Amino acid sequence: MSYNLLKGKKGIVFGALDEKSIAWRTALRCHEEGAQLVLTNAPVAMRMGEINKLAETTKAPVIPADVTNMDDLKKLFEEAMKHFGGGIDFILHSVAMGMNVRKGKHYTEIDYNWNQKTLDISSMSLHRVLRTAWDMDALNEHASVVGLTYIAAQRVFPDYNEMADAKALLEAVARNFGYHYGIRKKVRINTVSQSPVKTTAGSGVKGFDGFLTYAEKMSPLGNASADDCANYCVTLFSDLTKMVTMQNLFHDGGFSFTGVTQAVIDQMEK
Amino acid sequence: MSYNLLKGKKGIVFGALDEKSIAWRTALRCHEEGAQLVLTNAPVAMRMGEINKLAETTKAPVIPADVTNMDDLKKLFEEAMKHFGGGIDFILHSVAMGMNVRKGKHYTEIDYNWNQKTLDISSMSLHRVLRTAWDMDALNEHASVVGLTYIAAQRVFPDYNEMADAKALLEAVARNFGYHYGIRKKVRINTVSQSPVKTTAGSGVKGFDGFLTYAEKMSPLGNASADDCANYCVTLFSDLTKMVTMQNLFHDGGFSFTGVTQAVIDQMEK
Amino acid sequence: MSYNLLKGKKGIVFGALDEKSIAWRTALRCHEEGAQLVLTNAPVAMRMGEINKLAETTKAPVIPADVTNMDDLKKLFEEAMKHFGGGIDFILHSVAMGMNVRKGKHYTEIDYNWNQKTLDISSMSLHRVLRTAWDMDALNEHASVVGLTYIAAQRVFPDYNEMADAKALLEAVARNFGYHYGIRKKVRINTVSQSPVKTTAGSGVKGFDGFLTYAEKMSPLGNASADDCANYCVTLFSDLTKMVTMQNLFHDGGFSFTGVTQAVIDQMEK
Amino acid sequence: MSYNLLKGKKGIVFGALDEKSIAWRTALRCHEEGAQLVLTNAPVAMRMGEINKLAETTKAPVIPADVTNMDDLKKLFEEAMKHFGGGIDFILHSVAMGMNVRKGKHYTEIDYNWNQKTLDISSMSLHRVLRTAWDMDALNEHASVVGLTYIAAQRVFPDYNEMADAKALLEAVARNFGYHYGIRKKVRINTVSQSPVKTTAGSGVKGFDGFLTYAEKMSPLGNASADDCANYCVTLFSDLTKMVTMQNLFHDGGFSFTGVTQAVIDQMEK
Repeated sequence: MSYNLLKGKKGIVFGALDEKSIAWRTALRCHEEGAQLVLTNAPVAMRMGEINKLAETTKAPVIPADVTNMDDLKKLFEEAMKHFGGGIDFILHSVAMGMNVRKGKHYTEIDYNWNQKTLDISSMSLHRVLRTAWDMDALNEHASVVGLTYIAAQRVFPDYNEMADAKALLEAVARNFGYHYGIRKKVRINTVSQSPVKTTAGSGVKGFDGFLTYAEKMSPLGNASADDCANYCVTLFSDLTKMVTMQNLFHDGGFSFTGVTQAVIDQMEK
Repeated sequence: MSYNLLKGKKGIVFGALDEKSIAWRTALRCHEEGAQLVLTNAPVAMRMGEINKLAETTKAPVIPADVTNMDDLKKLFEEAMKHFGGGIDFILHSVAMGMNVRKGKHYTEIDYNWNQKTLDISSMSLHRVLRTAWDMDALNEHASVVGLTYIAAQRVFPDYNEMADAKALLEAVARNFGYHYGIRKKVRINTVSQSPVKTTAGSGVKGFDGFLTYAEKMSPLGNASADDCANYCVTLFSDLTKMVTMQNLFHDGGFSFTGVTQAVIDQMEK
Repeated sequence: MSYNLLKGKKGIVFGALDEKSIAWRTALRCHEEGAQLVLTNAPVAMRMGEINKLAETTKAPVIPADVTNMDDLKKLFEEAMKHFGGGIDFILHSVAMGMNVRKGKHYTEIDYNWNQKTLDISSMSLHRVLRTAWDMDALNEHASVVGLTYIAAQRVFPDYNEMADAKALLEAVARNFGYHYGIRKKVRINTVSQSPVKTTAGSGVKGFDGFLTYAEKMSPLGNASADDCANYCVTLFSDLTKMVTMQNLFHDGGFSFTGVTQAVIDQMEK
Repeated sequence: MSYNLLKGKKGIVFGALDEKSIAWRTALRCHEEGAQLVLTNAPVAMRMGEINKLAETTKAPVIPADVTNMDDLKKLFEEAMKHFGGGIDFILHSVAMGMNVRKGKHYTEIDYNWNQKTLDISSMSLHRVLRTAWDMDALNEHASVVGLTYIAAQRVFPDYNEMADAKALLEAVARNFGYHYGIRKKVRINTVSQSPVKTTAGSGVKGFDGFLTYAEKMSPLGNASADDCANYCVTLFSDLTKMVTMQNLFHDGGFSFTGVTQAVIDQMEK
C-alpha cells in the first residue's frame, strides 16, 4: 500500500543490518512511498552481506561509511548527491554500538576508552553526519532528519547500561544541531523514541526478553513494531510535518506516559 | 494536493468557527485527504453562520452541540454514526473558552464560577466527548483523537491566564482517557501543542501581537500556521501513526525546546 | 532533633487529618524547627477531633475553613495574622478529595458534578488560598508555599482516577500563581510530588496495597515516608531555598526517573 | 549564620577556582554548617593558587586531581578518607571545560578530539568520580552527590555550544549511577540546574552579558546567585533530603517554567 507520501524525495538510510532492523523496514516503506534511497552502514556490518538484498528491492546503491570517519562521510554525501543528481531530503540515523554492553561490563565498571567509542559511534556520529551535510550544503530546504533513540535517555533501565547515556547525548545533539540547521535552512531534526524491538542488535542486551514482556504489559497499545516505526518515520520525512523540529517523539504505544497498568499490578500480586 | 491518507475514514471536527480557525483548516485538509466529515460547534458559535460554507465545501452535515451537555453529545454521535453508516475513525477537539479572559479578569482575580465554566468547556469537554463515544462504543478500533493545546500548560505565559490551567487539565484528560481507550479498543488520544495563531479566538487575548512576534523570533522555523497544523493532524489521523498515544506533541517550529535565540538576545541588547 | 531552620517563621498548615497524614507530620517537624503554626482543615474533617492533639503538641490554634469558601479563607487569614501579629512565611496545602473515587466511579463513568467538586476542593482551592492571601497582602516577602501532589499528574496510574486530572490542575495553578506572586513579592510556590503513603486518605483507593508494593520495588531508595516528606518540606520553607519556585519536585526515592528495576523484571519472569 | 545542618559530615568539593565560583561559595557554606571538607581541582587550575585562601578559611586540605585520571581520583579518595578517618558523606561536582568553546569554534564546526575531551572532563568525570568511590566503597550510607548543570541540557541556548551536549550527558550519568548507588547504599545523586552566574569560567562565553540580562528578565525571582546555590546545595547534602535522588533540580528563580514574562514582551515591542 502506498500514498506516495515521499514521491520525488531522496534519502540516506544509515544502519540497515538485516530484515529485522528498524532501518531496513524504514527503507522498505520509504521506497514504497516513492522515495529514492542510498543505503549505508559500517564496512564491518556490511561484510555480512545481507544489505544487498535490501539494495535490490529498493533499487538503492550501498555506500559503506564509518560514521566516525569524516572522510568516509564526505565521500558518502558526495556519492549520494551524485546518484540523486541533487540535494538530500531526509536522513535516518539508526546507528548505535555499546562497546561495554557487548563486552558484558556492568555500568559501574565500564572501560572509559570503549565508552568513548560508544559515544562517538552512537551519539556524536549524528553530529558528524549533520556537520558533513552542513559543510557541503547537502540538505535541501525543509529536509528531515530522524535519529532513533530509547526512553532510557530519560529514565533508568539498568540493563541498558552506557547506551542510556549515549542516547541522552544523541538527543541533545539532535536538539542543538536542529536549532542551527532550522535557522539556516528550515531543516528539521527529531529523534524517535521507539518501543524495544527484538532486532539482531537488541537481542544482545542482557535480560532483553523479560524487559520486552514488561514493556508490552506497560503499554496500553502494546509495543510498537519495527514496521510501525517505519510508518511513523515516513510521516516525519513527508511534507506534512514541516514544522516539527527539535523534538523527541515517543513511539511506544503509550509506554512513556503510563505509570503503571493493571497488568503489571496483577503480576506484582502473584 | 492529496495523498488519500484518510480515504474511507470518518471523522468529527469540533470547533470550526471561521476560515482562520485551525479546526476549519483541518476539516478542509481531511476532506482533501479523502475523509468523510461531520462538523459541530456550539449552537451560539454557529449562529454566526460561517460554518455552512465549510459544510458545503467538505460535503459535511453540521450538527450543533453544546460540549457541556451530555444529551447534545449523545445526539451528535448518534446522528454522525447514522450519517456515516458506522463508527468513527477520528475526532478533532478544538474547543476552548476562557470566561475570565474574555471578561478581562486578571489571573489573580478570576471569578470561580466563570472559571468552572472555562474548565468545563475547554477541558472536561474532552472527557465528555470521549465518554459519550465510550458509552455508545462509537469509535472504531485504532481511532485517533486529537485535542489542540498550548505550551502554557507547561510554562507560564502570563496573559494566557486561566486557559493555562485549562490546557494542563485538557492534556491530563487526554492522557488518562487515552490509557483506558487504548486498552479497550486501541484508540489513541493525543494533544497537539500548537504555535500561537492569529485566529478570531486568539485575537481576543491581551498583548497577543507582541507575543506572536516573540514566538516567531523564538522558533528556529518560525511559528507554525493553521495550515501546517492541519497537515500535522492529518498524519495523526492516518494509519501511519497507530502506535502514538497519550502524547503531547509540540507543533511549533522548535519553540518548545529553544531556550533563547540570537534574535531575542539581539532584541535584549537594544 | 532540631536545626532551628524555621525559627521565627509563621506558617499555616492545611489538611492534618490524623497522625498518619503528611500534613500532620509536617506540622510536627515545622514546630520542632522553631516555626509558629496555625492549623486548619475542613469543618467536617475536624469533627473527628484528632487535630486537637496536634494543636496541643504544636501550640497552634485550629481555625476551621472550607477551602472552597472565600469567606472562610478570609477569616482564616485574618485570624492567623492576628494570632501571629503579622504576615505569613509559609503554607502547606495538603488538601484533596476525589468525590468519584470515593463513590467507586470508574474514570470513564465519572459524575461531572462531583468532578467539579473534586477539582474545586483539590486544585482550585490552592488558587483560592493564594488569592485570599494576595488580596490581603498576607504573605511576607520570600514566603514559601508547598502543595502536595502525585506523579499521576504526569503519567497514568489507572486507579488514581480523576485525582490524576486534579493533580495536573493543581500543579498548573502552583506554576501560574507562582509567576505572579514571585514578581510581586518574591513568594515561591512549588509542589512536592510524593511517594504513595498509607495515610487514612490514601487507604481508600482501590488496589492501593498492590500499588504501594510496586512503587517500593520501583524506587531505588524505596518509598519516601510521611516523615521524610515533612523533612523535605522543612527545607522548602527555610531560607535556604529562596530561589526555588514554580517547580514540581519529586520526593520519591527515585521512582520518577526509574524506567524499571531489576526487582520488577524479576517479578515479571515469575 | 549557621544551622549546623552538616555537623559531623565530611565532603569533597570539586572545582573551586576563585571566590566567584559556585564551588567556592558552597565550600564556605558547608564549612559554616559544620562540615569537614577536602578541596580538589585540576593541577593546572590550582597553579593559580587562589584555592589556598579557601583552604585556610575552611581548614581543608587541598588535594589536586585530574578528573580524567583514575589514579589521581583513587589517590584523592584515599587521602580524603585518611584525612576524615572514615567515609564520605557528600560530594560537589562542579567541573566543566568546553574545549571548543574556549577555542571559539561554533557548534557546527567543533573539533571532535577536543569535544571528546570536553565530554570526558565535564560529564564522564562524574562517572569516574562515582566509580572510584564505588570501587573503594568510599561513600557512607545516604551520602549525597550533587553535580552542577545548566538548562541548556533541555533547551537550546546557542552560545552554550557543545557544553549543552556535555550537560545532557552529565545529567544522564547522575541518573544512571544514581540508580545503582541508590540500590547498593542508599546514596542519592542529583544535579542542580543553576541560573547563569558571572563566574570567571562563565565570563568566557560569547554573548554572556546579553544572556545574563535575558535570564534575569525571564525569571520571576531574578537569577539565583552563587551564594543562593550554596544554600541550596547545603539542603541537598543534609539529612533532610534523604529521599531525593536521580533528579535534575532547577535552581533558577523560576526561569525553567516561565514561557515569557511581561518584561521580555515589553522589550520585544521596542
